[in-house]
Amino acid sequence: MKAMEEKILTSGKVLPGNVLKVGNFLNQQLDVNFLTEVGKEMARLFADAGVTKVITIEASGIALATLTAQALGVPAVIVKKHFSANQSKEVYTATIDSFTHKNSYTAVVAREYLNEGDRVLIVDDFLAVGNAIRGLQKILGEAGATLVGCAIAIEKAFQGGGDALRAEGIRVESLAMVESMSDDSVTFRR
Amino acid sequence: MKAMEEKILTSGKVLPGNVLKVGNFLNQQLDVNFLTEVGKEMARLFADAGVTKVITIEASGIALATLTAQALGVPAVIVKKHFSANQSKEVYTATIDSFTHKNSYTAVVAREYLNEGDRVLIVDDFLAVGNAIRGLQKILGEAGATLVGCAIAIEKAFQGGGDALRAEGIRVESLAMVESMSDDSVTFRR
Repeated sequence: MKAMEEKILTSGKVLPGNVLKVGNFLNQQLDVNFLTEVGKEMARLFADAGVTKVITIEASGIALATLTAQALGVPAVIVKKHFSANQSKEVYTATIDSFTHKNSYTAVVAREYLNEGDRVLIVDDFLAVGNAIRGLQKILGEAGATLVGCAIAIEKAFQGGGDALRAEGIRVESLAMVESMSDDSVTFRR
Repeated sequence: MKAMEEKILTSGKVLPGNVLKVGNFLNQQLDVNFLTEVGKEMARLFADAGVTKVITIEASGIALATLTAQALGVPAVIVKKHFSANQSKEVYTATIDSFTHKNSYTAVVAREYLNEGDRVLIVDDFLAVGNAIRGLQKILGEAGATLVGCAIAIEKAFQGGGDALRAEGIRVESLAMVESMSDDSVTFRR
């Protein structure tokens, strides 16, 4: 998606440690007009996949998951990063190592929100090493649901997670694929 | 909003400890078609308030904040519950006691996303004692931004937070106001 690459070039910022800061439109301040178009594009890419649900892990992918689900006309399921007081006891869980935060957490979702026969699209803001997607893949497998693919706003292609998933036959559509970053430039794979 | 009351009655569930479980449409599984209408209603209520930004604290209000911002045509700002690797060092913070989780956390948002002159609408899924809104009010005050009001999906009116805010002259619009709950019924204030 040309518009995503342009947005990264005009509004993004490269910080030390291979961090691409896009907080002013993607995940801290949300440019909702732009993200509505992103959601439509993600929906268009998976229009013929028979998606019944969109899924994401809280928190930074929630807005995109919501807008993609809106464009597809299906519900979105938000996987939590911890148990809460309101949480059902009947849950699926997966332990996930966070690349961004250098820790690990237990992803948890109530069983009632994922059914056998569901065709599920994973939506997220970033794909780096792919740990979050691996965790969701495990949860979907336990639920007997089908993973139809992953729609990602920005893939850090140089970290290899997307290519590893593709090599296993998983459909991964990233609206921008960053091949390399330096202090003053971002190069995309096309 | 009649539709919100009906949704609570048909899809909600009262759990011990005054917990109203609405995870199947509001904050775990999102009924995005319904929430799109909720966002439009929140936008309609504040249509003449000159809103320049919608704000919420992650994570359960993000979908509603996104959809209300979409209907208003303005950005949404997501306040984080912890510092992250990608976080700017120039931030506003507030310490907030969580009624749901029985703990406290530091809300944090980069200064660059809130400006003097911003007219800000707080959006959230629940209002109980009002601690999250107090924290956001402090942050907006430090930023020199104006709080135009609060748009809430479900107010637990019996916990008093909404009435205390109204008594101070803050405009609080709740789409459903729960006056009392028991195992088998929910009574609304009108």
